[in-house]
Amino acid sequence: MNSLTVELGDRSYPIFVGAGVLQQCDLTRYIKAKQVMIVTNETIAPLYLEQLTKLLVDYDVQQVVLPDGEQFKTLDYVNNIFDQLLKTRQNRTTTMIALGGGVVGDMTGFAAACYQRGVNFIQIPTTILAQVDSSVGGKTGVNHPLGKNMIGAFYQPQLVIADINYFVTLPQRQVAAGIAEIIKYGLIYDADFFVWLEQNIHKLVAKDPEALCYAIMRSCEIKAEVVSKDETEQGIRAWLNLGHTFGHAIETHQGYGNWLHGEAVAAGTVMALDLSCRLGWIGQDLLDRTKTLFELAELPIAPPREMSVDAFIDLMSVDKKVLDGKIRLVLIEKLGRAVVTDQFALHLLKETLSMGSSAVVK
Amino acid sequence: MNSLTVELGDRSYPIFVGAGVLQQCDLTRYIKAKQVMIVTNETIAPLYLEQLTKLLVDYDVQQVVLPDGEQFKTLDYVNNIFDQLLKTRQNRTTTMIALGGGVVGDMTGFAAACYQRGVNFIQIPTTILAQVDSSVGGKTGVNHPLGKNMIGAFYQPQLVIADINYFVTLPQRQVAAGIAEIIKYGLIYDADFFVWLEQNIHKLVAKDPEALCYAIMRSCEIKAEVVSKDETEQGIRAWLNLGHTFGHAIETHQGYGNWLHGEAVAAGTVMALDLSCRLGWIGQDLLDRTKTLFELAELPIAPPREMSVDAFIDLMSVDKKVLDGKIRLVLIEKLGRAVVTDQFALHLLKETLSMGSSAVVK
Repeated sequence: MNSLTVELGDRSYPIFVGAGVLQQCDLTRYIKAKQVMIVTNETIAPLYLEQLTKLLVDYDVQQVVLPDGEQFKTLDYVNNIFDQLLKTRQNRTTTMIALGGGVVGDMTGFAAACYQRGVNFIQIPTTILAQVDSSVGGKTGVNHPLGKNMIGAFYQPQLVIADINYFVTLPQRQVAAGIAEIIKYGLIYDADFFVWLEQNIHKLVAKDPEALCYAIMRSCEIKAEVVSKDETEQGIRAWLNLGHTFGHAIETHQGYGNWLHGEAVAAGTVMALDLSCRLGWIGQDLLDRTKTLFELAELPIAPPREMSVDAFIDLMSVDKKVLDGKIRLVLIEKLGRAVVTDQFALHLLKETLSMGSSAVVK
Repeated sequence: MNSLTVELGDRSYPIFVGAGVLQQCDLTRYIKAKQVMIVTNETIAPLYLEQLTKLLVDYDVQQVVLPDGEQFKTLDYVNNIFDQLLKTRQNRTTTMIALGGGVVGDMTGFAAACYQRGVNFIQIPTTILAQVDSSVGGKTGVNHPLGKNMIGAFYQPQLVIADINYFVTLPQRQVAAGIAEIIKYGLIYDADFFVWLEQNIHKLVAKDPEALCYAIMRSCEIKAEVVSKDETEQGIRAWLNLGHTFGHAIETHQGYGNWLHGEAVAAGTVMALDLSCRLGWIGQDLLDRTKTLFELAELPIAPPREMSVDAFIDLMSVDKKVLDGKIRLVLIEKLGRAVVTDQFALHLLKETLSMGSSAVVK
């Protein structure tokens, strides 16, 4: 059983990665009292809820089943979780379990952070994207109509279980969305991993278990290392947002849930590399290699055709990295190294933002 | 200028106490960038908003004016604050300022904890209750229809300004509500202070500046000491909740805002002492002295007549101190010392809960 630890002092926690780790990792060691509240969604519940509750026969298990989709990642739906927590009299020693993708994980984590000012929670991510990114590192929260992930908390789980057996039922579009975040890790942090991805992208797309296991483990290692260095994003953690300022703008503009997060990140990453290229920091070669990788995963490599430069600028100016009104972006200095900067000419940014006319039809 | 520090390592912060400290303390030293968002309410805004904004002429100041009252301390109204933060493009370096009573402070602090996963905030409490209790120590949050303060965060401010000049316009009922929490500090932590309160209660009720200043300073000192020892309420911090389990039940039952928090705490404190007396831990004498103090401040000394034992038990069983289904209460062992316990016979608790028939008509 593969495992690693997110090192955060007395808030450190393990991540188990592999096929069947849900059964192998003795989940109950991480539950401190009788009460358990599982939060999942309408897609995952019929597939995997019973399998999980069977591991918890000795506990008083309650559940909330949310609708499935980014458009439901709102304060209103988190309030539904609070309703259920209070109706079932969950006390401060309850353990919340997020069983689902990134939306379920982000909402459950935020509810756990706020309920009675903080209860324990466990992440059981069921998508590739959630396993390699959102379930690790303690970023929790919800969207606001005016901006993605604008409301939330840094709040770490007690445990992350990344079981790749869940991918048997994962739709191909979701597989691709997860691969987008995996490719990001290569670009910002690990040139060798990027090369490995170029050699193994077909295996990942085909859900080859061994390749997936390696890619998820390596992604989690990078994320854990970055989060350990900078939990609350004062510095290097922002690298993990490569493509996200562009991507969040796309998601908000298109209506949450229409573009998957990973799809928006893919297009946004191409835009970040495009601007890095216009600035002369990277060559056309790396931009082309990245586009090829995304295309092989059937991911978009440009923003939606109808999205104007002004729409981008407007939405990007509420980004969490904005300081004193200046947009700051994560760009690439060279393969394996990112930088957060506001040092770019506006006309170059606008050239990048106008690349929507070449958008791949989704 | 009186001041003290809440010692919490790199999250330590000062409290300034006295007449005119708003002008004297150089507020702007605690604001780290250009953006400031003041949150206040419809009662305070016409009285004191301009006075505050005049101190901030060099800043980009925005404001949210909430309706006044505990019934508006909800997630929906916090969402209104988020709307305004996003519409005015507040970024991570913004400073939020809570100008108002406990409701404004709790909501602003919670909004600051969650907006972009955490921005700075300053407490400028305008009521006695907020100055001695809610503005200090980082408990932030909102009510839920099923329980008081059930949704929130531990999140510390950068600064607390307790200016007693605000009390010129403070209604007498609010003065009394604040005195209830002051008396609490004597009961749980400082027998000498309790005796001082017995000798000076008339001065406090009459808003004598010198007496108020002393009582607020001493209350803040006790609170700061307790919070420094136990920020997230694993132990001694729960003492500060003397009377609150009963009191929250009253507030929830009566509809938020009908009983002021301090009024419910007064009645709840009498109930906690009544039970402590039935258990033989304290004598009738201390119970009578406490009732006398509350009566001199025109505070209720019994719960609402119509509130049944079952209604109490039901509402108290969602309290944050409940563990494994058992109600735990803060009781008094002797003057100046509290204890958190579930060691009381249910029939004695029920006798205490049935004291509503002697309720003072409000």
